[in-house]
Amino acid sequence: MTSPSNQPSESPRPRVVIIGGGFGGLNAAQALRDAPVEITLLDRTNHHLFQPLLYQVATATLPPSDITAPLRSILRHQKNVTVLLGEASGIDVTHKTVQVKGQPDLPYDYLLVAAGARHSYFGHPEWEALAPGLKSIDDALEIRRRFLMAFEKAEEASDEEDRSRYLTFVIVGGGPTGVELAGIMIEIARQALREDFRRIDTARTHIILLEGGPRILPAFPDSLSLTAKKNLEDFGVEVRTGEMVTRIEPDAVWVGDERIGARTVFWAAGNAASPLAKSLGVPLDKAGRVEVNADLSVPGHPEIFVVGDLALVLQRGKPVPGVAQGAIQGGQTAAENIRRSLAGEARIPFRYFDKGNLATIGRDRGIADLRGLHLSGRLGWWLWLTVHILFLIGFRNRASVLLQWAISYLTYQRSSRLITHIDPPQGVPEAANTGP
Amino acid sequence: MTSPSNQPSESPRPRVVIIGGGFGGLNAAQALRDAPVEITLLDRTNHHLFQPLLYQVATATLPPSDITAPLRSILRHQKNVTVLLGEASGIDVTHKTVQVKGQPDLPYDYLLVAAGARHSYFGHPEWEALAPGLKSIDDALEIRRRFLMAFEKAEEASDEEDRSRYLTFVIVGGGPTGVELAGIMIEIARQALREDFRRIDTARTHIILLEGGPRILPAFPDSLSLTAKKNLEDFGVEVRTGEMVTRIEPDAVWVGDERIGARTVFWAAGNAASPLAKSLGVPLDKAGRVEVNADLSVPGHPEIFVVGDLALVLQRGKPVPGVAQGAIQGGQTAAENIRRSLAGEARIPFRYFDKGNLATIGRDRGIADLRGLHLSGRLGWWLWLTVHILFLIGFRNRASVLLQWAISYLTYQRSSRLITHIDPPQGVPEAANTGP
Repeated sequence: MTSPSNQPSESPRPRVVIIGGGFGGLNAAQALRDAPVEITLLDRTNHHLFQPLLYQVATATLPPSDITAPLRSILRHQKNVTVLLGEASGIDVTHKTVQVKGQPDLPYDYLLVAAGARHSYFGHPEWEALAPGLKSIDDALEIRRRFLMAFEKAEEASDEEDRSRYLTFVIVGGGPTGVELAGIMIEIARQALREDFRRIDTARTHIILLEGGPRILPAFPDSLSLTAKKNLEDFGVEVRTGEMVTRIEPDAVWVGDERIGARTVFWAAGNAASPLAKSLGVPLDKAGRVEVNADLSVPGHPEIFVVGDLALVLQRGKPVPGVAQGAIQGGQTAAENIRRSLAGEARIPFRYFDKGNLATIGRDRGIADLRGLHLSGRLGWWLWLTVHILFLIGFRNRASVLLQWAISYLTYQRSSRLITHIDPPQGVPEAANTGP
Repeated sequence: MTSPSNQPSESPRPRVVIIGGGFGGLNAAQALRDAPVEITLLDRTNHHLFQPLLYQVATATLPPSDITAPLRSILRHQKNVTVLLGEASGIDVTHKTVQVKGQPDLPYDYLLVAAGARHSYFGHPEWEALAPGLKSIDDALEIRRRFLMAFEKAEEASDEEDRSRYLTFVIVGGGPTGVELAGIMIEIARQALREDFRRIDTARTHIILLEGGPRILPAFPDSLSLTAKKNLEDFGVEVRTGEMVTRIEPDAVWVGDERIGARTVFWAAGNAASPLAKSLGVPLDKAGRVEVNADLSVPGHPEIFVVGDLALVLQRGKPVPGVAQGAIQGGQTAAENIRRSLAGEARIPFRYFDKGNLATIGRDRGIADLRGLHLSGRLGWWLWLTVHILFLIGFRNRASVLLQWAISYLTYQRSSRLITHIDPPQGVPEAANTGP
């Protein structure tokens, strides 16, 4: 099998392979717009995903297409990029090729690995089927299905105990994803769904947010994280800090010796870097991340860069956080260093510029830490909305999200309460799927 | 297991069970708004589907949530309705109960069966996996996946013949669904996708519409059906009438002795009524439909009504067509007859009022037959758009569809080019899914 990028001698231009079309990979490709290189951007999906709004897809507030854009379409005018749909299965650093499942190897002169992370279940991979996490659109649709099906099963349930287990949701992990899920889920249960059922009162829905550390949203200052906790509690969420999950069963979550009856559990705790990092043959940290050099290259391999959630970059002794801005800026710096190497210039070190930290807790409640300036409440919420609309890719997505949000805000209803693939996929146990 | 509707003696009000939340079932439930009955509306999905726009979901033009609305949400203020998510597996006409998979039986005093139809593969059920049809949102997502994946596979293909097989699409059936799919697919291939690929020219996409009868759109007058054919051919679709599929393989379709190399086949021919009809124990026609009485009740069972695609209703010697208007009006008449029976009044016969027939062929091309007034071209197209926006359920869906259409029309781009569940579901053969 032959393909243009598979014939090393044909192209005089250096080949840059980018693994992953997320914030890091896409921004790197775009930063190489005018560089004399042939770029191949490889992704497992056909779209770039605006991950900060993924929880809104998982909670039926936005349709998946509002927060995604086809990679081909974003890059259609950039003629030095070929987009390839496929999954990287390994990297051969000696022969400088990327192995792709079911496709020919991709040779590279420069490689940028921006493959992101999946969830870490802290040594309990068997929990994944019972407590799905939220990284991709397929994940979000699965969470949406389980969230909506739980109310259907509660309506159908034959006894009070069973009904209560279907109306109890446990969210593990008090970072932004866990907090945002909890805040929006309680609102949907108590407002949007209230009149829709005849046998259950969805206002009795119980949402428990479990955080192992001493406080939720540890990336924020103490005072804001306290505000967030108070807001969640006002909405009716039970916030429990300093508590670790010890066991997950189809109808219960254990915290130490306490058994919490719950049919539906979502996982928003802990990252494990893509297993691709292992094939680089360099030291990884506990979370599986690559400890990169200051220029974001891999030790011993100046031609390989790692950015985003897969990279461990220390700055003033602290790791750069695994957020969109870190990946975007990392991608841009790696691209600039590729350009410099080609031009024979000295590379620059990565300097992460922290623009601030935002989170939304629920209707009219948000928090913002803007380099020391703290906002909360309605002001924080509006700031969050504005920033997220602005950063979305494409006019259509912005217009559509604005429309969905405006209608949801005014009517309290949710636009995407659609259960697709009602029959659960193979291998999913009966966690939230089967009745009594 | 007990549930309110399972305890016959508790409710003094007659129990009406409606199977199916499509046009027929939903309209019947709504028409019984003020009737002194307890209604249970049973559907396999949680949503009402606006089927006339389903082909736009299948072609990445609209997100699924724009043409669906949760049944619970539509009926939330109608307190005499309980919505139940579940699949009817049989009807016991002697004991007057509906069997529901994995749930208790539903006893009824009146039963309305509006379970619709699936596709008929004319004695070749094995074709279904190779040539999916378009009846549900899950069907539409599967067609969207295959349609978009075909271009990805073509871009990856190693030889010209294989590439051409991925760029050839065969649509079987020249009714409205087949025509609308063909018209929109050729536009997307030739316009929206054109700049997105590097190795293939999507303008070379070949779309073949096969119709077994002498002309496409047989429900329209001769002249309009000829206009539609001409429009499709202008767009670049190959329209072949009087040709029947004799065999479907993973990479080819046979028409008689001719082998057409094509990796992707869609099925838009022939209906087979829901198998539920069989459990009524009354005569069915060849398509599996129930030959109902003039009042839409089942012969010998005045308490059971059948409406929509599942019913064969003759009017002036001709069957009422299986279109939305037929189901809507049928549902309303059946509801009225239930109300009359309860009030001791005489039943009315069903009178189908044909409001007209519309179809869209592609950008700026539509046809309309309004009780003898024929429109085509841009006028027909605008009429089609207006009518479909007006008939959509809910302000949000209308606003969102309008926005998506406006942007698609102005930019030629498609908003929902999202491939979900990239790994094909279990049991799907390698039709459009595997590379060389």
